[in-house]
Amino acid sequence: MEALKQKIREEGQVLTETTLKVDSFLNHQVDVSFMTEIGREFQRRFADERITKVITIEASGILPAMATAQALGVPMVFAKKTKTVTQNDEVYVQQVKSFTKGTVYDIKVSKNFIQPEEHILIIDDFLAFGHAVLGLADMIKKSGAHLVGAGIVIEKGFQSGGKILRESGIRVESLAIIEKMSSTGILFKD
Amino acid sequence: MEALKQKIREEGQVLTETTLKVDSFLNHQVDVSFMTEIGREFQRRFADERITKVITIEASGILPAMATAQALGVPMVFAKKTKTVTQNDEVYVQQVKSFTKGTVYDIKVSKNFIQPEEHILIIDDFLAFGHAVLGLADMIKKSGAHLVGAGIVIEKGFQSGGKILRESGIRVESLAIIEKMSSTGILFKD
Repeated sequence: MEALKQKIREEGQVLTETTLKVDSFLNHQVDVSFMTEIGREFQRRFADERITKVITIEASGILPAMATAQALGVPMVFAKKTKTVTQNDEVYVQQVKSFTKGTVYDIKVSKNFIQPEEHILIIDDFLAFGHAVLGLADMIKKSGAHLVGAGIVIEKGFQSGGKILRESGIRVESLAIIEKMSSTGILFKD
Repeated sequence: MEALKQKIREEGQVLTETTLKVDSFLNHQVDVSFMTEIGREFQRRFADERITKVITIEASGILPAMATAQALGVPMVFAKKTKTVTQNDEVYVQQVKSFTKGTVYDIKVSKNFIQPEEHILIIDDFLAFGHAVLGLADMIKKSGAHLVGAGIVIEKGFQSGGKILRESGIRVESLAIIEKMSSTGILFKD
C-alpha cells in the first residue's frame, strides 16, 4: 500500500534498528480517515474470502480491525489482555510472549464469540515475531472455526514472524513490509 | 438514543445492581455498524461545536471514539494505561482510580497530540464515578486546549460521575442513562 509506505517515511521515527515509532497516525494519535482506507485495503485483499468476523488483540489492533470490519460489514472481537486466568468453559485463553516488551501475558476471548461455523480474519497493527497472531490462530483452531488469514498493517520483515506464519500455512497480507531500517532511512520490500 | 436502549434491553446482562455486561456488542464483541451509528449520534449532538480532535482511554473507549472521529472527520488520540511514569516534558500523566476494578492506574498522552489551540471532545463507553473523564479533562486543562464536552455511551445514573462532571461545568451527553437495574429489568432516565 503505497500511501502507507509514504506515511511511514514521512511520519515514522526509527528509534533503533528494530523499533519504529508511528504514534502520530497509527497507535496513539490516529489518522482516522487513513485508518478507514487501511480497512478498505484489507477488504480488497481478502475479497475472495467469505469472512464472518474480524478478530484482534487490544489495544492498538482495535483501530485497523474496526476499520476492516466496517469495510466488510461484519462484527469484530478483540481479545483482552489479562492476568493469568484458568482455561474454563466460558473463555479461550492463550499465552502470548511479547519479545518487544520482554513480557508474557494471557489473552482471552469469550467462547460465545468464536463459533465453529465462522470464517475469521485476524487483523493486527504490527507483525514482529508472530506470537500474537499464533495465539489467536490457536484459539480459532480450538473453536473449530476457519481461519481465513491475517492482515497486518506493518510487518517487520527482518524478524521471524512473517516466515513462521506463512510456513505454517497462514495467508498473511501485510500492507507494508520493512526489510531494513536505520536512522538514515527505511527500506521496504518490493 | 432509542436504538441503544433497545440493544441494552435485548443483549445486556445485569450481573449485579451496579454491573452491566454488554460484551456482545460494545466492549468485547463489537457490532461495528451499530458503533458507526453511535459515532454519528455524537456528531449530531455536538454539531454546534467546532471539534478538532476526539480523545479517549484504551481499550474499549477506542471503538466509540473512532466512530465519532470518523463522523466528525477529525483525528483521535487514545490515552495509554501505564505503570507509574514520571511527569516529564514529553507526556501528560494523570492518575485514575477505577472503582469498578478497585485499582489505581496512570494514563499518559504525548504532549505533541494535545495542542493549546485545539477543541477536544472526550468519548468513553461507560460513565460511573467519572474518574477517567476527570483525568482526561485535567490533561486538556494543563495543555491549554479547550474541552468541548464528554460523550458517553452508557451512563450509570445511579453513580456519582454524571453529577460531578456536570456540576464542574463539563457538558455531558450520554446516549443512555440507567437509573436503576436489577435482574428483573433496566430503568432508563426519560
